[in-house]
Amino acid sequence: MAPQLDNYFKQVDTLAETFIDRLRAAVAIPSISADDALRPEVVRMSSFLVKELETLGCTVEARPLGPQPGKPHLPLPPVIVARYGSDKAKRTILVYGHYDVQPALKEDGWNTDPFTLSIDEQGRMYGRGSTDDKGPVLGWLNVLQAHKAAGTELPVNLLMCFEGMEEYGSEGLDDFIKQECQKGGFFEEADAVCISDNYWLGTQKPCLTYGLRGCNYYSVEIEGPAQDLHSGVFGGTAQEPMTDLVRVLGTLVNTDGKIQIPGVNEMVAPVTEEEKALYGAISYTMDDLHESLGSQTTMQDSKEQTLMARWRYPTLSVHGVEGAFSAPGAKTVIPAKVIGKFSIRTVPDMESDKVDEAVFKHVRSEFQKLGSKNKLNVSLQHAGPWWVASPKHWNFSAAGKAVQKVFGVAPDLTREGGSIPVTITFEQATGKNVLLLPMGSSTDAAHSVNEKLDRRNYIEGTKLLGAYLHYVAEEPMENGR
Amino acid sequence: MAPQLDNYFKQVDTLAETFIDRLRAAVAIPSISADDALRPEVVRMSSFLVKELETLGCTVEARPLGPQPGKPHLPLPPVIVARYGSDKAKRTILVYGHYDVQPALKEDGWNTDPFTLSIDEQGRMYGRGSTDDKGPVLGWLNVLQAHKAAGTELPVNLLMCFEGMEEYGSEGLDDFIKQECQKGGFFEEADAVCISDNYWLGTQKPCLTYGLRGCNYYSVEIEGPAQDLHSGVFGGTAQEPMTDLVRVLGTLVNTDGKIQIPGVNEMVAPVTEEEKALYGAISYTMDDLHESLGSQTTMQDSKEQTLMARWRYPTLSVHGVEGAFSAPGAKTVIPAKVIGKFSIRTVPDMESDKVDEAVFKHVRSEFQKLGSKNKLNVSLQHAGPWWVASPKHWNFSAAGKAVQKVFGVAPDLTREGGSIPVTITFEQATGKNVLLLPMGSSTDAAHSVNEKLDRRNYIEGTKLLGAYLHYVAEEPMENGR
Repeated sequence: MAPQLDNYFKQVDTLAETFIDRLRAAVAIPSISADDALRPEVVRMSSFLVKELETLGCTVEARPLGPQPGKPHLPLPPVIVARYGSDKAKRTILVYGHYDVQPALKEDGWNTDPFTLSIDEQGRMYGRGSTDDKGPVLGWLNVLQAHKAAGTELPVNLLMCFEGMEEYGSEGLDDFIKQECQKGGFFEEADAVCISDNYWLGTQKPCLTYGLRGCNYYSVEIEGPAQDLHSGVFGGTAQEPMTDLVRVLGTLVNTDGKIQIPGVNEMVAPVTEEEKALYGAISYTMDDLHESLGSQTTMQDSKEQTLMARWRYPTLSVHGVEGAFSAPGAKTVIPAKVIGKFSIRTVPDMESDKVDEAVFKHVRSEFQKLGSKNKLNVSLQHAGPWWVASPKHWNFSAAGKAVQKVFGVAPDLTREGGSIPVTITFEQATGKNVLLLPMGSSTDAAHSVNEKLDRRNYIEGTKLLGAYLHYVAEEPMENGR
Repeated sequence: MAPQLDNYFKQVDTLAETFIDRLRAAVAIPSISADDALRPEVVRMSSFLVKELETLGCTVEARPLGPQPGKPHLPLPPVIVARYGSDKAKRTILVYGHYDVQPALKEDGWNTDPFTLSIDEQGRMYGRGSTDDKGPVLGWLNVLQAHKAAGTELPVNLLMCFEGMEEYGSEGLDDFIKQECQKGGFFEEADAVCISDNYWLGTQKPCLTYGLRGCNYYSVEIEGPAQDLHSGVFGGTAQEPMTDLVRVLGTLVNTDGKIQIPGVNEMVAPVTEEEKALYGAISYTMDDLHESLGSQTTMQDSKEQTLMARWRYPTLSVHGVEGAFSAPGAKTVIPAKVIGKFSIRTVPDMESDKVDEAVFKHVRSEFQKLGSKNKLNVSLQHAGPWWVASPKHWNFSAAGKAVQKVFGVAPDLTREGGSIPVTITFEQATGKNVLLLPMGSSTDAAHSVNEKLDRRNYIEGTKLLGAYLHYVAEEPMENGR
C-alpha cells in the first residue's frame, strides 16, 4: 500500500516560510569549527538544535567529547543525539548531519554577508552552511514539525546524530559512534542509516549515492645536504634532492591518469555488464564537466568513461612539494630536503596495505635506479578506505520511491570520487546499510564563496526526507543486505 | 725593482687598532638596503664614508641615483665616488665595494649583537658587514691612512666606487658605471679594476679570482583547469598540470649533474692541458666540501673534478614549484597552474641565447611527448653572463706578487661558481682587466648569522691592498690583455 503523504506534503508547503526562518536563524550563527575563537558560536548552534528538537517532542542529549586533542583547555563541541519515538513495532532509522560550517569572510568574495541568509529572485538562498549541512539537518526537524501539523504519525522511530566538528576532521566522533552503536548505546536499535551531506550530480535530477572512493596519502622525502645551498657555489658538486624527487614523481602516473605503479591497477575489481549498463542513464554530460573545470583538459571523451574514472577507478594526484622554493620570482636555492606529496584514490577491491606495499616498492626501486647518495623515506600519511553499499537494499529502494513520488523521476544511482569517512564508521559500527541521500545540488558551492541552497531543494528536500521514512516503513525486508 | 713596503707595513701594524675602530664605527651603522625603513641608516653610512675619505685627502662626491624603481618617494642611496691623486705619469686603478649590508636580527641566531663589532680571543671580529663588504671597503681607506703615516707616496692614482644597494640588486648602478666610464666620466682614466667583495676558497691561502659562472633562470608554466580542483571529485577526469610538470622537470638533469638537454654540454669550451694543470695545486680538499655540505652526498670523488664542476662546467638546479601545495601536512588539491623553476649556471663558451633556444626546444619537445591538453609556457626569467678574465694580465701578476710578499705564498688562481654581475659591467664599461681580490675567508658566513672577519684577514688584507697598488705600478705593460 502506497503511503498517504498528501497531508504531510501540504503542511510542508504551508510551513515553508517557517522552515526558511529556521534556516535563517541557523545560518546567522557562525559555527566555524576550525576557528578556536568561535567555539562558543559552535556551542551556541548546538544549543539552538537542542531547543528546537525538544520543542518538537524529541528526547535530546548534548554529549560532551572532552577537550580537543592537543588543546587541553578547549572543549570539543557536543554531539547532539536525539530520539523521536520508541515503538518496538517500527523500524528505527539513524540519521547523521553536522551543524558546524566552513570558514567564511565577506572579503573572500561573497556577494552577500555569509552569515545572513540572502534569498534572490530565483529562490537561491545564500549563506554559509545553507547546503553544508544546516539545510539538510534542519530538514529532519522540518519533517517532524510538518508531521505534527498534519496530524500524521511518524512511521518509524528516528534517531539523530548531529556533530559540530565535521569541517575539522570529526575529532572524537569515531569512538563515540562505535560506543553508542554497542549494546545499551543510544544508536543500538538502528535498522539502517541515512546521511544527508552530499550533493546531486547535476542540478535537476536527485540521486542516491552508494559508493565513495578511499584515499591513501603518501610523502616521499629526499634529503641530502645538512642545509639549503646556493646553486652558484654548490651547483655541480652536491647531488640535489629536488633532481631526484622530480624524477621519482615523474614515474607515478601518466598524463592520461594511468597509474604506472606495478600491481595497483591489477587490484581493481573488473567492470561487470550490469554495472556498465548503469552509466548510460545517468544525467550528466561532458559539458557539465567542462563547465566545472573551466577548461576542456579532460582525460576522457565520453560521459561513461568520465563517470567510471571518477567513481570506480583509482587515480593518482601529485599535490606538491614541501621544502622547495614555492614563491613567485627567482631564488637560486638548492633545497636540502624536499617532500613530495601524492595520493591515490582507492576503489574496490584495492586493499590499503597492499597499495602501500606496491607504492613503497615502486618508489624505492625508481630511486635506486638513480644511483643517488641522498636519503629516501617514503611513507603513508593517512589512509581512508573506499565504501560501496548495496543499492538494492530496502533502505535504497525506499529512498528511490520517495524521489519518484516527490520529484516525479527515478533517481540516478551514483558514487562519488571523494571520501566521507563517517559513512564507513556508521556501516562498521551498526553493521547496517548506509544510504547517502543528498538535498543540495552540484552548483551549491559548499566550502566555497557564495554557498547556497535552492528553495526548491530545501522544501522539496524536506518532503523527500519525510517520504523516505514512510517508504522505509513499508519496504519488504527481503532485500536486507 | 721590488717596491719598498717596509715602512708602509709597519704603519699598518701600528695603526691596527685605529683601523679596527674604523670598522667598529661602520658596523654600528645598520645600513640594510633591503629595509626601506632603514634607508636613512644607509645614507648615514654613505656620509660616514664621505667624511673619512675627505679627511684622508680624497676628492669625494655623493652621486644620487634618483628614486628607487617602483617607489617614487624613496631615493636610492648615493654612489660614493672618490679620487686620490691625478698624476698622468701613474697608472689609475678603479676599486669597487659596497657599504650596504644584509639584514640581521639578534634573534636569527647571532651570538652577539650584529651591529656591535665583537672580537673574540682568536681575533674573530663578529658583526654584520664586517666581511661583506665594510672590511674590504675600509681596507682601501686604511691603505691611504698608512701611506700618509709612513710618508710613502701612493704609486698609482686611485678611483673609488662604493655603492649602497648591492644586497638589493645594485639598483641603478649599471647605467651609472657605463656613463662614468665614458669620455669625461669620473672613471674614464681607469687602467684596471679591482673588486674586493668575495672570499678565499679556504681559510689559510689567499686567492685571486679570474672567473665567474653566469646564470640563466627559467620558468616552466603548465596550466589546465580554471581553478584548483579537489582530487576526490576530479581526480581521474582532468589532466593534471603537476603530473606533466614533474615529468618534464625529470628530463632536465640526472642525479650526477649531467645536463640532459641536447646541445647544452656541447657548447662548453674543452679543458686544455694548461688549465687542467692548475687544479692540482689549489688548496682545497673533499673534506672541506663535506664540511660545507654537512653531508657526503657529492657528485664527484676528487678535488679536481669538484673544482672543475663548480668553476668551468655548467650545472642545472631545479629550485621548486610555484602554485602547488607546499605546506606541511596533507592537502588533496589538484593545482590548476604550476610553475617549475630551474636555472643553468653557464660557462665559456655558452651563448645565452643559444642556451635558451636549446632549453625551450627540449622542454617543448618533452611536453609534446606527453600528449597533454594542458598549456605549456617556458620562458627565461633572467640571464647574467659568465665572466673569465686573463690571469696573466699585469693586474693579476701584480696582485700575485703582493700576496707572495704579504703572506709568503703564491695565491691560488680560482674561479667561482656564482655570479657577481658588477664584474662584467666594469669589464664591459671600461674595456679593462678586472681582478677579484678577496680579503675574507671561506668561514666568514657572509649573508648568514655570526658574520665575521678575522683580524688577520683585515690587517694583512690592508697590507695586501696597498702592496697590490705598488706592484701594479711596477708591472711591465706587455701582459695588457
